[in-house]
Amino acid sequence: MTAEPTHWPLADGRDLFFFSLPEHPPAPVPDRRPLPERTDQRSELRFDRTTGQWVIIAALRQDRTYKPPAEACPLCPGPSGLTSEIPAPDYDVVVFENRFPSLSGAGTAPFVLPPLNDDLSTSAPGHGRCEVICFSSDHTGSFAQLPTAQARLVVDAWRHRTADLMSRPGIAHVFCFENRGEEIGVTLTHPHGQIYGYPFLAPRAAMMLDQARSHRARTGTNLFADLITREIADGQRIVARTDSFTAFVPFAARWPVEVHIYPNRFVHNLTELTEPELDGFAEIYTEILGRFDRMYSTPLPYISALHQYADTDEQREGYFHVELMSIRRSDTKLKFLAGSESAMDAFISDVTPESVAKRLREL
Amino acid sequence: MTAEPTHWPLADGRDLFFFSLPEHPPAPVPDRRPLPERTDQRSELRFDRTTGQWVIIAALRQDRTYKPPAEACPLCPGPSGLTSEIPAPDYDVVVFENRFPSLSGAGTAPFVLPPLNDDLSTSAPGHGRCEVICFSSDHTGSFAQLPTAQARLVVDAWRHRTADLMSRPGIAHVFCFENRGEEIGVTLTHPHGQIYGYPFLAPRAAMMLDQARSHRARTGTNLFADLITREIADGQRIVARTDSFTAFVPFAARWPVEVHIYPNRFVHNLTELTEPELDGFAEIYTEILGRFDRMYSTPLPYISALHQYADTDEQREGYFHVELMSIRRSDTKLKFLAGSESAMDAFISDVTPESVAKRLREL
Repeated sequence: MTAEPTHWPLADGRDLFFFSLPEHPPAPVPDRRPLPERTDQRSELRFDRTTGQWVIIAALRQDRTYKPPAEACPLCPGPSGLTSEIPAPDYDVVVFENRFPSLSGAGTAPFVLPPLNDDLSTSAPGHGRCEVICFSSDHTGSFAQLPTAQARLVVDAWRHRTADLMSRPGIAHVFCFENRGEEIGVTLTHPHGQIYGYPFLAPRAAMMLDQARSHRARTGTNLFADLITREIADGQRIVARTDSFTAFVPFAARWPVEVHIYPNRFVHNLTELTEPELDGFAEIYTEILGRFDRMYSTPLPYISALHQYADTDEQREGYFHVELMSIRRSDTKLKFLAGSESAMDAFISDVTPESVAKRLREL
Repeated sequence: MTAEPTHWPLADGRDLFFFSLPEHPPAPVPDRRPLPERTDQRSELRFDRTTGQWVIIAALRQDRTYKPPAEACPLCPGPSGLTSEIPAPDYDVVVFENRFPSLSGAGTAPFVLPPLNDDLSTSAPGHGRCEVICFSSDHTGSFAQLPTAQARLVVDAWRHRTADLMSRPGIAHVFCFENRGEEIGVTLTHPHGQIYGYPFLAPRAAMMLDQARSHRARTGTNLFADLITREIADGQRIVARTDSFTAFVPFAARWPVEVHIYPNRFVHNLTELTEPELDGFAEIYTEILGRFDRMYSTPLPYISALHQYADTDEQREGYFHVELMSIRRSDTKLKFLAGSESAMDAFISDVTPESVAKRLREL
């Protein structure tokens, strides 16, 4: 495990953490930007009684940074302390609180969601935390191109933030993810991801845990472990296997490109992986992303979603894994989520999972 | 109610129906295109054990029509019977079977989905039906611009197709919808919608019915009726009200623009509406779409989703309504469904439902 990160407060009091490679300590300067003071105004959570899901209404974010020119990138190092979110001449990996957070305020004070009774207008403060993680100081790089030690440093940063956010009152679910590509609306091209601490279990995770609990009740086994065993036995949808991880296109893939990466051993989240497993995760993850970028003439737009769970009654059946998905369905065409997908959650895929797995294996 | 439609077979045996205004009977010509014979090859349904949802794998559709030039529009009238899906010099409203269907084969033969036991690889033929509905023969029009009688004719066509498809064995759920706008991937600009007959209850409808059944068990009332009453009493999110319909932005709206339209009387689907209510529906629906098109300098891209239910034990709590949604969040910006929405189903909205309702009321 790498050393503890260096904490460095930003001008408006937000937290920033430097995660550094050995013998490359950060050399931060004071953040001298005249940033407006942060208010304690939070977004709002509203409970949708028709779906049983929380929705976040973050009306304060409409003015957030939108496609700045490269020379004004807020994620590049800012040696003067005046031009960037990262007041330092250089960095390896940094994590900082989002300046335009959808969720905020999760510290040490207790927070509980209101009870879900028959009130038709249940709402709550947008408690939680939104962080940005910069994978590299190189503006033009990508995760797939990171050297192994750098990718492993990102994994350590995810792990550190996961442990920290999971320990905060009122955070029910920690979600590390990356949106990559203008095609999916990414407004900052500098390689970065995000970390959300939700005050609720996100709907998709909740749905999967429901299925897993009911599988456990019927079979006595873990659903995801059984699915990995089935995928390995079948073989057709496997993309890559190592001692510690298995990557495959799921049997009922919803996206034109979709790969799930599971550790071979059942763990709930990154904090439960051993050092060799963390190395193995950094390795297979960058390997799969490299295959993504070789699929077409330009790099694949994708979403990477780390499914992490807590060892609690509600989440115990949750098996740590990454779900990678892309809307690109050919060199020139994107899949759009239209009526069937967006309005009815009924996904229609144009390709067989087996053919996508074969393509990815051969790249 | 308008007269029964005129049935006219296409060259490859697909059904086409002309729905016509009074005293404007269709004058179809034979479809003389050398279309390849239809095969009985169907797409595949696969059950996703991790979510409890069916996914449609329609690998045969990758070559479907993609942004043809206007002079080759397959939805414009084709008087020669050689250039279009509609072999006629003119039409009012037509419905025909999609040439590249995601679901097919629903006729009179019985069909049952396989049982959902602990098999991890449950699949089934892609049984169902996919139809295209042309709202007008005018290539450049839009639904919002339809004269009232024409909009009502579309409603009659939806109603006819709903009744027909609901009666077919193995169709569990009929979904009429419109995708409008290149921004959401529409490849044919001619004003048209689609009608799906799913062999399963679509996941979002299933989720809403679960909530409504549990609401009924607790309160003895219909969830959606209670929500309409609450919206009317509150008033802030109401966009329009008539004798027979109420349109509002939902309390926990997920999209930058979202309006739901409910009849004031609880019905399950279009076939249960009276003649005056059908008139009222055509009227409020085009009225709301007109407001959409006045929001920004160019017409709003949107998805329109008709939620229709059957009067069965599973679906009885379902209240007919339309959900309209748009990803446009300003004159120049779109909302993309990225990590939180696409991978976790956790929606983040940048605007308050109340401000959107106010804006729409004032337009």
